[in-house]
Amino acid sequence: MKVLRSVQRMQRLAQAWRRASVPVALVPTMGYLHAGHLSLVKRARVLIGSKGRIVVSIYVNPTQFAPNEDFSKYPRDLSHDTRLCRDAGVDVIFAPSDTEMYAGKRDGSFSTYVVEEKLSAGMEGVSRPTHFRGVTTVVAKLFNIVLPQFAVFGAKDYQQAAVIKRMVCDLNLPLKIIVGPTYRESDGLAMSSRNKYLKGELRAQALALSRSLAKARSLVRSQPKGVSAKLLKSELKAFIEREPQARVDYVEFFEPNTLVPVKSVKRGTHMAVAVFIGKTRLIDNAEM
Amino acid sequence: MKVLRSVQRMQRLAQAWRRASVPVALVPTMGYLHAGHLSLVKRARVLIGSKGRIVVSIYVNPTQFAPNEDFSKYPRDLSHDTRLCRDAGVDVIFAPSDTEMYAGKRDGSFSTYVVEEKLSAGMEGVSRPTHFRGVTTVVAKLFNIVLPQFAVFGAKDYQQAAVIKRMVCDLNLPLKIIVGPTYRESDGLAMSSRNKYLKGELRAQALALSRSLAKARSLVRSQPKGVSAKLLKSELKAFIEREPQARVDYVEFFEPNTLVPVKSVKRGTHMAVAVFIGKTRLIDNAEM
Repeated sequence: MKVLRSVQRMQRLAQAWRRASVPVALVPTMGYLHAGHLSLVKRARVLIGSKGRIVVSIYVNPTQFAPNEDFSKYPRDLSHDTRLCRDAGVDVIFAPSDTEMYAGKRDGSFSTYVVEEKLSAGMEGVSRPTHFRGVTTVVAKLFNIVLPQFAVFGAKDYQQAAVIKRMVCDLNLPLKIIVGPTYRESDGLAMSSRNKYLKGELRAQALALSRSLAKARSLVRSQPKGVSAKLLKSELKAFIEREPQARVDYVEFFEPNTLVPVKSVKRGTHMAVAVFIGKTRLIDNAEM
Repeated sequence: MKVLRSVQRMQRLAQAWRRASVPVALVPTMGYLHAGHLSLVKRARVLIGSKGRIVVSIYVNPTQFAPNEDFSKYPRDLSHDTRLCRDAGVDVIFAPSDTEMYAGKRDGSFSTYVVEEKLSAGMEGVSRPTHFRGVTTVVAKLFNIVLPQFAVFGAKDYQQAAVIKRMVCDLNLPLKIIVGPTYRESDGLAMSSRNKYLKGELRAQALALSRSLAKARSLVRSQPKGVSAKLLKSELKAFIEREPQARVDYVEFFEPNTLVPVKSVKRGTHMAVAVFIGKTRLIDNAEM
């Protein structure tokens, strides 16, 4: 397994693979890998076969963090990530520096962004206004550098996956987006690198997210005619905030493809939730 | 020579070429081809050799026109363009419909744009605020559909070429941008599909653009210490507007790479000009 830090070397390797008709799958990550990420690597291997190449990109992308967010303290551990990737059969880790990725940023000459204006407007886009522009830009860059036939994303970032699928379609990017299911700890907490922040009693309080999804789901399944989204949201907010350190950022119910909010929640409606547990902002989602 | 109208068929052909390691050059145009375009085709052939493939895209892109502009009456003549391309040794004309290019536009689901925020801010970006966003978006799409190693643009659209080079660099697009020189009629008028609009005495008045460039150049060359941009602009505006139907949109002097306006114009400074001749808006540019 190689660890590449240069954009040019990665792109040249990708072009060599392309000339040799080697199938390539990319798993874009911000590192600090967990079993959820590794499940995406397994999925990538199935997609491209034993002769294909899997690239895991590890890059904490500054342009998707707002100044008040956790960019500088986002957990990083490249040597641990490297061991996990090697054991998982990854072929290349692409771990560029900020200077490599935004070569012109320092002298102000980086000035091109990819923006998605519909699916990224709600939920995370409200709470984190510049987030998705950072995501779509860096993901487009990664696609152009690694030139994969498949890119595998996790379902925990449901809106992100929807935005990226839309970008690929709108810009005719020559690859397929695959979304792997959310991985959970045995008690239901969705795996996330940010779970590392959950010290002491916060860890138990973080179960409010997955429990709110389960609660909503069982309510919705018991009411085939639909449940008022407004009512459900306020009930769930109260439910989550029974945990002393939990503060709801949003609870949303929406059509799974368009992300358009619904008034009446039914089986098949999608729910997403964002909650601060102490200072840590966590997200989760599920089909009702 | 093939004429393809389907995005999917074009992209599949491009992918087949890629697998076969066939070099590809793209010449993006809005059609109504003239000798300037054909010079770009010749340049493309030199770049990729006799075994390579040249794709000329012909597409009047709606997203780069403002509602008050000439989108609907922009000149179109696909059968004439087809003959010219065949004679010039083009391999494929890619001439998609709007429905093909913006499949989701009608139901409002097209929502991803590529935006360049620095080089596109001045000059054309002031006069046509949504123009470059349309250009960068459609050009990114064309690159992803045709997958060329080279794309050849004309120098008449100087700012456009600069914006596209920046986009390619910032987004790590795996291709090279080549810029061919402006072609001119024997009296100096820069070739443009819009010259078709110049009826009667307007044709002669349109020489004000190239003459203003020549005038500025000779002034600048005679003053090695530099000439005040402000002074020069107002002199040139008066000079151009001596033509009864000429109205200056802008005259600008700037650094050729950064497009940053200069106060003192010297040899090597770049000048660009946009002028309405009657209702027809023409542009031209030159190095001083």
